[in-house]
Amino acid sequence: MSERSSIGPVEALRLAFTEPIALAAGVSLPTWELAYETYGTLNAARSNAVLICHALSGHHHVAGYYADEPKNLGWWDNLIGPGKPLDTNRFFVVGVNNLGGCHGSTGPCSNHPGTGQPWGADFPVVTVNDWVKAQARLADVLGIDAWAAVVGGSLGGMQALQWTIDLPERVRHALVIAAAPRLTAENIAFNDVARQAILTDPEFHDGHFYRHGVRPTRGLRLARMLGHITYLSDDQMAEKFGRKRRPEAGHFGYGVEFEIESYLHYQGDKFAGYFDANTYLLMTRALDYFDPAETHGGDLAAALAAARAKFLVVAFSTDWRFSPARSREIVNALLKNKHAVSYAEITSPHGHDAFLMDDAHYHAVLAAYLRNVQI
Amino acid sequence: MSERSSIGPVEALRLAFTEPIALAAGVSLPTWELAYETYGTLNAARSNAVLICHALSGHHHVAGYYADEPKNLGWWDNLIGPGKPLDTNRFFVVGVNNLGGCHGSTGPCSNHPGTGQPWGADFPVVTVNDWVKAQARLADVLGIDAWAAVVGGSLGGMQALQWTIDLPERVRHALVIAAAPRLTAENIAFNDVARQAILTDPEFHDGHFYRHGVRPTRGLRLARMLGHITYLSDDQMAEKFGRKRRPEAGHFGYGVEFEIESYLHYQGDKFAGYFDANTYLLMTRALDYFDPAETHGGDLAAALAAARAKFLVVAFSTDWRFSPARSREIVNALLKNKHAVSYAEITSPHGHDAFLMDDAHYHAVLAAYLRNVQI
Repeated sequence: MSERSSIGPVEALRLAFTEPIALAAGVSLPTWELAYETYGTLNAARSNAVLICHALSGHHHVAGYYADEPKNLGWWDNLIGPGKPLDTNRFFVVGVNNLGGCHGSTGPCSNHPGTGQPWGADFPVVTVNDWVKAQARLADVLGIDAWAAVVGGSLGGMQALQWTIDLPERVRHALVIAAAPRLTAENIAFNDVARQAILTDPEFHDGHFYRHGVRPTRGLRLARMLGHITYLSDDQMAEKFGRKRRPEAGHFGYGVEFEIESYLHYQGDKFAGYFDANTYLLMTRALDYFDPAETHGGDLAAALAAARAKFLVVAFSTDWRFSPARSREIVNALLKNKHAVSYAEITSPHGHDAFLMDDAHYHAVLAAYLRNVQI
Repeated sequence: MSERSSIGPVEALRLAFTEPIALAAGVSLPTWELAYETYGTLNAARSNAVLICHALSGHHHVAGYYADEPKNLGWWDNLIGPGKPLDTNRFFVVGVNNLGGCHGSTGPCSNHPGTGQPWGADFPVVTVNDWVKAQARLADVLGIDAWAAVVGGSLGGMQALQWTIDLPERVRHALVIAAAPRLTAENIAFNDVARQAILTDPEFHDGHFYRHGVRPTRGLRLARMLGHITYLSDDQMAEKFGRKRRPEAGHFGYGVEFEIESYLHYQGDKFAGYFDANTYLLMTRALDYFDPAETHGGDLAAALAAARAKFLVVAFSTDWRFSPARSREIVNALLKNKHAVSYAEITSPHGHDAFLMDDAHYHAVLAAYLRNVQI
């Protein structure tokens, strides 16, 4: 096995598209941009390209670091690099910030071409199908006819799944990790509370807070705190925080007394400091809407009938946001179609967040699968 | 079996205490009041009294209705009445609003005797031990030396458990339903998000919103919406709401589109319209602090060693707020002490809320247990 090392310094790229893109919401963006990064080298046959799809709060900076920000590691740097499970000595890896994002791609923070002001809440709600469409346009420009693999966790896994349905001839392998074929009522309920926290923040200003020089940080903070509860497992929270008190904490008040409160506030404050509230709304709505079976009378197997990819589906034992049972729904629908599918249920204490972690078993499964991907 | 019927019209009572009560927070209330109701008749031996302890948002109106509000049924009316599982032909039942509540007992909405203004956030955080102490003072006045039973669900069940520890000679049976011996980190995390929603609502005004003529309804609404997610089971939400859309709903926006959103908003709005935000903070903190094992080095069995009551512990299969495993912790600690304990794990789709439901198996278990309570 080759030595594992970081891909090193990487560069954020941006591509401007001048052909309009028609979105599911019925709106067409006449011009639009995608922020992306690439790692490794596209081979002559253009057969070694791997697309990484991000989850709710992710972006295109997936691996390596920026020369002037050596500590700003990509969010999946533990997975992607020379000698790593997704080996950049072998694969040409593409990270992309989705349409509607807030990390460089066209989204609510971008200026509306008509007004010169940020789109804000007028930016259309974007769907997983829209993202696949936009990512395909990026593939066109990069000269990639078919991805060797499309890989994603959580909402990213949903995009990998949607690729195999919408553009079956353009994806040879789909790695669908910690995902679900659709949200449950409970999943939607959590998203709803998060959205309501943002929408009812007086500084949201109907999504046009930019022009007021404020940001709905209270709502965004609550949304992220709530999100974190669903990303972690009960067991892991118990082990990591339990009922531990802050040594300096007061008592009989409503300040931070328990370690878990301190953790949530830290995570919430950090996130609220940089993330865009309209993007958060949009990403959670995309999650709500994702339901490839819907147009097939609720039959996921029928929705996946035309897929031609081979699949690796991965779930984590303590993930209660998208439990292993949800991944098995995908596996069963694939098996009904006699599609090639490998399924791994990883024992991990890390809940939904496990898909981001450097777990030996998990990474070994991905490495083994990817070694067998022909390029 | 006698016919089951409503206890009929009932009256809300109020008792003023002029002997101070010293609270765990180190504050003493010189004068204080408890709102309560009673159903049935105290027998000559004063041996048939049952105390009902309420949960987070409950109160003293447990059964029957008010003559001028025939639709305002008590929250446990399905359980309590003539011929019902908790039979008022046999028992004298007492409902009480806890100290710190917002339904008539002294709490944050009450006027501070020194200022004549509402206590607001200056009202001390009250603990489960404080409630037991206050309820005991009510028992003194009513001439009840020992309760035939103390009964409660959720936070109410914690009070029943605490009674057996703090005043073992004054409770003969404890019915501890859908409870836990302490909150987990995840439980505290949900409470924290709910509190933060209230505390960061600009109309909270550091807990003194009364004097500003406003109420932090946005925060309270979010807190209640989140609470409801934890009260229901995933399965029940899936069955009741699933991914059903509102027929009149728009699409590609952030309004109410899914039925589950409509349900949560309705529940949130209703609650925010009447409940006091400071009471909500206080009740959730009482939940966080509840941990009878804490003063016994974390050993729940040691905490329960001095209890003399007999116990019925009830849990519900789909309750993920306080799962059956949490009830079994209580049962195991009781068994270690060779205390008499019956345990029932009820198969129910209703999650934590099941303790409020008219489930035949559940009510049969309570009825059977209570029939054997000597009076």
